Amino acid sequence: MSEHEKNGYRNPIPTVDLVVRRHPEGKEILIEKRGRDPFEGLYALPGGHVDYGETVERAALRELKEECSISAKLVAILGVYSDPNRDPRGPRISTVFIADYTEGDLKAGDDAGSAEWIDLEQLLDSKNEEKIAFDHWKILNNYKKWLENPGSTFWSTG
Amino acid sequence: MSEHEKNGYRNPIPTVDLVVRRHPEGKEILIEKRGRDPFEGLYALPGGHVDYGETVERAALRELKEECSISAKLVAILGVYSDPNRDPRGPRISTVFIADYTEGDLKAGDDAGSAEWIDLEQLLDSKNEEKIAFDHWKILNNYKKWLENPGSTFWSTG
Repeated sequence: MSEHEKNGYRNPIPTVDLVVRRHPEGKEILIEKRGRDPFEGLYALPGGHVDYGETVERAALRELKEECSISAKLVAILGVYSDPNRDPRGPRISTVFIADYTEGDLKAGDDAGSAEWIDLEQLLDSKNEEKIAFDHWKILNNYKKWLENPGSTFWSTG
Repeated sequence: MSEHEKNGYRNPIPTVDLVVRRHPEGKEILIEKRGRDPFEGLYALPGGHVDYGETVERAALRELKEECSISAKLVAILGVYSDPNRDPRGPRISTVFIADYTEGDLKAGDDAGSAEWIDLEQLLDSKNEEKIAFDHWKILNNYKKWLENPGSTFWSTG
């Protein structure tokens, strides 16, 4: 245990999320409906906690496999989202990757109630905002900006 | 305390680091010599731990002020570095920002033994590799790639 931990500091908890594209043009992405709280039944990007001793990139691909049974290739980091109120369980810092689908049959498992490919524009219809968990509405809109200006990066208050 | 914390999970600890440029062309950057262990006396980028309830972007600017007495404007995320061996104190996940200096007189404080502007090419002279703390040699080389290809993003194993 490091001095930082021994000193009793509480730390935000690292997580990952992914914008997974069915095809590299990037308009069709993977969305889950959450199978458990928080936000049970709402749309969410695949993702989860980073294990101790695990890299963020490994965590992202592991969560994708566990939740959706598919593999992907990481393309870029879209942003790092760390608004302390973004997750009702407490401060979570999420590294969000953009990834391209490579293989596997899409099947929901683990935290995901269901998983499907969806057209980004359809998902970003304004009437869906309330149906999207965490700050994933913001992340999805940032991804739309990224498509217009690849290489942009984003953060919660940016 | 969340279920995740109550379950006794240990988590990697979130940190931040910054590549601060004196001028927007980006060839002259801020480097510290560390004033304490680990890596006392070695070159390092400014940075530190993210406080509980703080965003990564706020942490980056706070650490810069505490360590070097200057302010900056965040430009982009260069990458997220999370190799579990990158810090001898234990797993640390660092969000690395690129930032442009805005104001303040450079003065070392807090963890920094000294702080100076340095030419990137001079710093990346191969004989300096052993003089650079943590994985900041890799981060600095990734920043050099970013200058050649702005908008690239990086991670430890990428």
